[in-house]
Amino acid sequence: MDSRTIVELCKQHTMWSWSKSGPLQPLAFERAEGVYLYTPEGKRYLDFNSQLMSVNIGHSHPKVLARMKEAIDGHMLFAAPSAATPVRARLGKRLAELVPGDINSFFFTLGGAEANENAIKAARLYTGRHKILSRYRSYHGATHAAMQMTGDPRRWANEPGASGFIRVMDPIPYDFSFGTTDAERTANHLRYLEEVIQYEGPHTIAAMFVETVIGTNGIQPPPAGWLPGLRALLDKYGILLVCDEVMCGFGRTGKLFAFEHFGAQPDILTMAKGLTSSYVPLGAMGVTDKIAAHFRDNVFWGGLTYNAHPFCLAVAEAVLDVMLEEDMVGNAARMQHVMLAEMAALKARHPSVRDFRAIGLFGAIELQKDRQGTRMAPYNGSHPAIDRMMAFFKQEGLFTISHWWTLMCNPPLSITEAELREGFAVIDRGLAITDEAVEG
Amino acid sequence: MDSRTIVELCKQHTMWSWSKSGPLQPLAFERAEGVYLYTPEGKRYLDFNSQLMSVNIGHSHPKVLARMKEAIDGHMLFAAPSAATPVRARLGKRLAELVPGDINSFFFTLGGAEANENAIKAARLYTGRHKILSRYRSYHGATHAAMQMTGDPRRWANEPGASGFIRVMDPIPYDFSFGTTDAERTANHLRYLEEVIQYEGPHTIAAMFVETVIGTNGIQPPPAGWLPGLRALLDKYGILLVCDEVMCGFGRTGKLFAFEHFGAQPDILTMAKGLTSSYVPLGAMGVTDKIAAHFRDNVFWGGLTYNAHPFCLAVAEAVLDVMLEEDMVGNAARMQHVMLAEMAALKARHPSVRDFRAIGLFGAIELQKDRQGTRMAPYNGSHPAIDRMMAFFKQEGLFTISHWWTLMCNPPLSITEAELREGFAVIDRGLAITDEAVEG
Repeated sequence: MDSRTIVELCKQHTMWSWSKSGPLQPLAFERAEGVYLYTPEGKRYLDFNSQLMSVNIGHSHPKVLARMKEAIDGHMLFAAPSAATPVRARLGKRLAELVPGDINSFFFTLGGAEANENAIKAARLYTGRHKILSRYRSYHGATHAAMQMTGDPRRWANEPGASGFIRVMDPIPYDFSFGTTDAERTANHLRYLEEVIQYEGPHTIAAMFVETVIGTNGIQPPPAGWLPGLRALLDKYGILLVCDEVMCGFGRTGKLFAFEHFGAQPDILTMAKGLTSSYVPLGAMGVTDKIAAHFRDNVFWGGLTYNAHPFCLAVAEAVLDVMLEEDMVGNAARMQHVMLAEMAALKARHPSVRDFRAIGLFGAIELQKDRQGTRMAPYNGSHPAIDRMMAFFKQEGLFTISHWWTLMCNPPLSITEAELREGFAVIDRGLAITDEAVEG
Repeated sequence: MDSRTIVELCKQHTMWSWSKSGPLQPLAFERAEGVYLYTPEGKRYLDFNSQLMSVNIGHSHPKVLARMKEAIDGHMLFAAPSAATPVRARLGKRLAELVPGDINSFFFTLGGAEANENAIKAARLYTGRHKILSRYRSYHGATHAAMQMTGDPRRWANEPGASGFIRVMDPIPYDFSFGTTDAERTANHLRYLEEVIQYEGPHTIAAMFVETVIGTNGIQPPPAGWLPGLRALLDKYGILLVCDEVMCGFGRTGKLFAFEHFGAQPDILTMAKGLTSSYVPLGAMGVTDKIAAHFRDNVFWGGLTYNAHPFCLAVAEAVLDVMLEEDMVGNAARMQHVMLAEMAALKARHPSVRDFRAIGLFGAIELQKDRQGTRMAPYNGSHPAIDRMMAFFKQEGLFTISHWWTLMCNPPLSITEAELREGFAVIDRGLAITDEAVEG
């Protein structure tokens, strides 16, 4: 099939997420290898967002493809969640070794949303409390409870929602400020948070969910000292800390898990995306020994048909092997410096660049519409110049996404320095388009 | 690894659904083929529940395994949901051809829960109304909104839940009765339902969700005339009909979709399980042309990273080919008669058999503790004799599940008459255990 036929049939017979499908002009991809995607006509795209920040090891890694075929030949594609399987035993043990601290027991789901849904259940059942705290600059998934925790506007269409979800400001909101230095922000935000906890009633709050590094809503690490401070604050009130590392986990930030950067341990860790690098779907929730022990004597009221799907677990095992054997986590840490240097050069050259950030290969460039730092697009909005820039990237074979006034730079962790610079060269040319829209 | 090691590691490092894990003694499976599962020690189990009523084509079908390897060699395992892919085009078109009526557009999810979550979103956005009707004898999934629709007690741990979910009696509840004949039950239940709709405000109700044939809560088809009557009632008030065929779809009932038995078309159809026969995870929601047209001009506020996952879609395509080429749907229809004859013989021989039902290879045997038909276990409870019978099945190499007072008989649709009778021979011997518990 050619691209035109593929797109026509897909538009006719499938629905499209987060959009009105009429005006969509999707690209058709037929093949993907390493950091590149190919259309049926052979046009090549550099994948500068790992699709949805998820193909961490790059596309079609030959070792993983071979291991997938071995798993198929092993003839244990599926077993009910009530059964034990060799791969469940191996991957459970492996993750217990890989996740720092006393998180040693894992509940396997299909993706990040279900991992978070099950983390809500676990936190509520373990603490006997009902309320869940989360932050406005967050995205935790599209199933109903995960969406209630989500701060970003995709929540609106899912309201009125469920009771017991309290959303608070982040330590670094968009405009409102908790201070000018990290120390000030951390101290002031934690005072704000403790006051909210008082108002809500500490004994009613089961857990606080945080993306360890904020993902879609700005690729934003916490200010220095904030995560340990949060840990201590929550401990004071017996509130669990849940780190959502669906996007920032599995090497994305240059460490295997993002919380390793910040000197504090969560009680529950949720993960997905990088865990299988999207080759097949898989999510997981990891819990501490204390929480695991609770559910030996008390019913865990969660489940799904595809809990601990053996074939998906086998793919995760292969993906982790490759990620570690080829030191992709180390590569992400090394490439951070290249990315930051490229971004700094772009900021120096382009008046439309407002700000930039990267931790590992988790990066974003913010765009402005004037030299005073006014964001180019409003909250939950867009700007024609950004649309034109994105169309230019499409034409030039660069695949990435924009989010309001932000351009995402999240390539596979296997990317080479040359490939990374190739992507920024296209961005450099594209920013000429947004530069033209800068006033004054 | 031997079974003992596998079970130990799985218990130590993984969490278990719907249970306190301490007392669990899971079986370890290493390999599965056709209707059989094998432990590492080579003990064979006849899969009499298709794991979770999901492995419809049987385990490790060689043609599907070969097609999975081809898909891997094709190097298009994953693409972002914003992209068009050849397999998305083909499977969308294929499902449009296979699903009767004007359901021609599909939104792909990971499993049944997310299919139902997205169906709630679609129904609310399409109608501009908020409330959702569902029935007490239902299970729609474990994510938060799907769980609010769920009638069975697994909902309790997820309360207080979201607003707008109204649960009603089924036309055939457990003890309360809408009448003695199908005509009476249908007419009276629909009058009851219309009165509930009046009380709730018809203009506030977006959709009613029904498992076309009730699954876990009793394998219960609707009384004659009920589904067309429901269709007409909902049409009168502009309320959408959503058929949840996650369990009863894809040949389980002896037709490709269960609603084909009952002479009425849903507006939205949700599916999972049989769609890929669990080889990989996949769910879907199908919508009518009218609803699809709405979302060409209006945003569909739903999405997930693994929407339209190319590798999973490719596996669904292979599974559907095999299911249809080998006429497994026809086999399910033919085997229904064998199953019903075996069940009737069991009822004649065993005082603990209260009732039995089967539609296609979707069957259940109810157990009683006296000759007056008192159910052997209470609602949401168990009975030691049933536990002993289940232990006997485990020992004798029969894999199935019980639900309160009900024994599930849902083998793969590929099962032969001899294999089916082999299963019932074990059940015949097991029922001697529950017979002993019958009073009087």
